[in-house]
Amino acid sequence: MDHLTERKTGSKEIFKGKVVHLVVDQVDLPNGHQSTREVVRHPGAVAIIALNKEGKLLLVRQYRYALGKIIYEIPAGKLEPGENPDDSALRELEEETGFRCEKIDQIASFYSSPGFSNEQLTIYFTDTLTNGSQHLDDDEFLEVSAVDLEEAVQMVQDHRINDAKTVYAVQYLQLRKHQK
Amino acid sequence: MDHLTERKTGSKEIFKGKVVHLVVDQVDLPNGHQSTREVVRHPGAVAIIALNKEGKLLLVRQYRYALGKIIYEIPAGKLEPGENPDDSALRELEEETGFRCEKIDQIASFYSSPGFSNEQLTIYFTDTLTNGSQHLDDDEFLEVSAVDLEEAVQMVQDHRINDAKTVYAVQYLQLRKHQK
Repeated sequence: MDHLTERKTGSKEIFKGKVVHLVVDQVDLPNGHQSTREVVRHPGAVAIIALNKEGKLLLVRQYRYALGKIIYEIPAGKLEPGENPDDSALRELEEETGFRCEKIDQIASFYSSPGFSNEQLTIYFTDTLTNGSQHLDDDEFLEVSAVDLEEAVQMVQDHRINDAKTVYAVQYLQLRKHQK
Repeated sequence: MDHLTERKTGSKEIFKGKVVHLVVDQVDLPNGHQSTREVVRHPGAVAIIALNKEGKLLLVRQYRYALGKIIYEIPAGKLEPGENPDDSALRELEEETGFRCEKIDQIASFYSSPGFSNEQLTIYFTDTLTNGSQHLDDDEFLEVSAVDLEEAVQMVQDHRINDAKTVYAVQYLQLRKHQK
């Protein structure tokens, strides 16, 4: 064991729900002491930076119960069991926005909250949208809109956009513009 | 109730640990149906984009038990009870890296994972570091390093940096350079 790694010595499942799977593990710390680690296990998620024919960014507006308010986000969703991220991205894009796309690129992948969860978010980009059909989950309610980059930057600045992956998306589009 | 908002009709606490506080609520959906929502309540966190005298970005390398591996992150930590984010940023910066700073600016605030948690992360920037003293928590083990922007961009591209707030930090520094 190196000087940073922790080693599991026991594990207890606390809860397994629709979204959250919580375990509490016993660990040996690098200094030989014992501690516990609380982990929210997550299947992984995808999010899509999608530009429509006018070059505007697709946003979905939905109530997030954990926050108690309606926020703007890029289209996103959890992986289904056994699903690979590429398929999930195409599925979530069409389910949430009603758009398909001809070509989609994986541009990034990162951990949302490594202090307590293994949630890994894979981000995609597309600007080749074609018409499909929206079909939301039974407990999913949202509105689709599209904003140009200037408006999106303003929305980040005045905190109308306050979701990590969507802030990332706006930065990505700003950098993409500089690099063109 | 508007056409997106969900209304709590009941709540049950499942677990309250050192980090994770899990509740499962009963809700009325906008269409009148009932459902449940699993929420990981979080005290909020701060993270600091800190450039040293050579203009290099401070990174901490630590084992993240939830991921089962060592990753690079910008310095960060949870708010203590009653603590405001500004004080927390100064505290975490010094505790983790051994640096104080003369001036620190709040530059962004966003939700890490709004699908199941209310964790709000507030991001700070400083380039006025002075020497202080590192003092880690009892169960905290990490190494501090510093990388220039070019190296940090490369680390994002080859996934050596794969933490959301640190990817945000690197994009922020890239945009800052373009805007200078």
